[in-house]
Amino acid sequence: MATTPFERRTRDAQAALDDAAADALVCFPSRNLSYLSGFSEEPGERHLFFFVPADGDPIFLVPELYEEQVRAATWIDDVRTWADDDDPVTATAAAVEALDLPDEPHVLFDDTMWAAFTQDLRAVLSDATFGLASEVVSPLRIRKDDAELDALRRAGDTADEAMDAVRALGSDAIGMTESELAARVESLLSEAGGNGTSFETVVGAGSHGAMPHYRHGDRTIQPGDPVVLDFGTRVDGYPSDQTRTVVFDGEPSDRFREVHDVVREAQQAAVDAAEPGVTAESIDRAAREVIEAAGYGDRFVHRTGHGVGLDVHEEPYIVEGNDRELEPGMVFSVEPGIYLPDEFGVRIEDLVVVTEDGCERLNDSDHGWEC
Amino acid sequence: MATTPFERRTRDAQAALDDAAADALVCFPSRNLSYLSGFSEEPGERHLFFFVPADGDPIFLVPELYEEQVRAATWIDDVRTWADDDDPVTATAAAVEALDLPDEPHVLFDDTMWAAFTQDLRAVLSDATFGLASEVVSPLRIRKDDAELDALRRAGDTADEAMDAVRALGSDAIGMTESELAARVESLLSEAGGNGTSFETVVGAGSHGAMPHYRHGDRTIQPGDPVVLDFGTRVDGYPSDQTRTVVFDGEPSDRFREVHDVVREAQQAAVDAAEPGVTAESIDRAAREVIEAAGYGDRFVHRTGHGVGLDVHEEPYIVEGNDRELEPGMVFSVEPGIYLPDEFGVRIEDLVVVTEDGCERLNDSDHGWEC
Repeated sequence: MATTPFERRTRDAQAALDDAAADALVCFPSRNLSYLSGFSEEPGERHLFFFVPADGDPIFLVPELYEEQVRAATWIDDVRTWADDDDPVTATAAAVEALDLPDEPHVLFDDTMWAAFTQDLRAVLSDATFGLASEVVSPLRIRKDDAELDALRRAGDTADEAMDAVRALGSDAIGMTESELAARVESLLSEAGGNGTSFETVVGAGSHGAMPHYRHGDRTIQPGDPVVLDFGTRVDGYPSDQTRTVVFDGEPSDRFREVHDVVREAQQAAVDAAEPGVTAESIDRAAREVIEAAGYGDRFVHRTGHGVGLDVHEEPYIVEGNDRELEPGMVFSVEPGIYLPDEFGVRIEDLVVVTEDGCERLNDSDHGWEC
Repeated sequence: MATTPFERRTRDAQAALDDAAADALVCFPSRNLSYLSGFSEEPGERHLFFFVPADGDPIFLVPELYEEQVRAATWIDDVRTWADDDDPVTATAAAVEALDLPDEPHVLFDDTMWAAFTQDLRAVLSDATFGLASEVVSPLRIRKDDAELDALRRAGDTADEAMDAVRALGSDAIGMTESELAARVESLLSEAGGNGTSFETVVGAGSHGAMPHYRHGDRTIQPGDPVVLDFGTRVDGYPSDQTRTVVFDGEPSDRFREVHDVVREAQQAAVDAAEPGVTAESIDRAAREVIEAAGYGDRFVHRTGHGVGLDVHEEPYIVEGNDRELEPGMVFSVEPGIYLPDEFGVRIEDLVVVTEDGCERLNDSDHGWEC
């Protein structure tokens, strides 16, 4: 069991806690927990905490039924358990006591921790002040190491394989509902070696594509329909995220052809702009300038991208106002779009990793709309 | 758009807020949000709140890119937006101001709301006290209406179809890794008409089955291996959840045969005990007594079940200490198990709905271990 990277990450987080004048962080089932401990679980209603004090050794508090699994998956010695007929708040109080925190400690909650759990921790830590764990964990997670990049590349390859297979449906996709096509996408991702979906699959046909976060529904795909396809899967815990806008059969409108060209050019401009030392917002501007120059500025209603790692949305956010400088190892999406309500939408998205002198795309499926 | 049930549920929640001396509840993307508003979304890093005051009309605050979708999916008139280059906390403060809450209000957070958002709401609502939305929403959600039961029955049928197909693999499953079989399960669920998985698929072969929350890995399935199969999918937003423990080919040990018989008997005893007016804990006891009598009491390390609705784990929890009386329309899992570390595990699970005079199973695939 390769536990060493997880122990190193936790020790780095402890040093960062100290620098941040914080006394502990508390994870629950989250990507931070996976990153620091090597144990992955979905959030659930049972109290499961990973306490990392600035000084001393971490403590796991887990439901009894997780004990064997947590001991097998992690390097943590101090694993405490509670049974389904115990009071989890009592168990939580005992674990907190064992951390031996100073008076009036400053404690960082996992950013995604549920209110049901922060409420209990606030009651137990009655003299504490609170912040968010991202303050110390995000700076560690934002630059991916080689093993992480390897998993992200393989996830990208898997999505490419599925996207190629979806595109190959061509006229066979005509008459399928969006939901049927989404199910087909998910089967193809699984057959390509992916593990589940990294977010809910988007198949937005015709005017549905004009809603940037539409999922899929009962609309039947018609000849000439632009269809926004946005999907991903996970490989070794790391996600892919790719969007193409295609026409399976028939002829789309001239306006669609023009808009697709604009989005494709904007996406390329943003990818071309990505290199170490430039700001995240400058990548957003590179895409936006192309779209504004074409007269569609007010129809590009979202940021250009988001970081991708264990979380499919994480730092760095590629958005106006984010003056963070890009560094090698950062991975993010580049996904400009134009949305014309009641007509159609176009979005094209690839993940890129910043390299020493530019960036590398993690997806290389065809960007065109023809199938 | 059938908005009427959602408006009715929200009005019921407002009446319940009043009864609970609470002034408002705040949802973020969650099952409570789906239940009350009709709008479904996964949690994300953008501020998206549904404010329900005890008096007056609800307010949606959503990222700009969701506006069209939220207006289309819900009956809410007051939809406010913020753009990616706005400050979401300022937008949150303005929406809270518009609620016109009394001084020192008592506000209920969605139970699964992320700490990143409760931190911002606590700052905006600086004179408030806080509780959890489940206090008023769970009593509404715990009894399913006919449309919910219909979706749950169809989800159960879909899982049955996939389970039958998995079992039919027989000797073809020998030599597959757990992860390969999990991918096959997910393809079968999708082909049967399910939408994604309702939780991470469990394929635990041999000793891996002895870890109740193990997912799947690289272990190859061998002749004679007991394999715990626990999976589900969603239909119209409602999940299935079913477990069988099977042997794909070859002869299992005598101990496995004995343990499988005990678990099967325990599961039947618990299902037989379910009817209106008995307590949740009495169902747990019915299963546990069978397992204790067989000498495996200390190897049944979890509760007997959990409620199932929009959330795959919700009330009523079937656990010692829960003296809530069962009522018609409640849906929960019955899933006793016996776990022998380093040997194998056995778990058998069905969902049931409490009827006027007993209960109805929502799954009817074969309970045996033979394939």
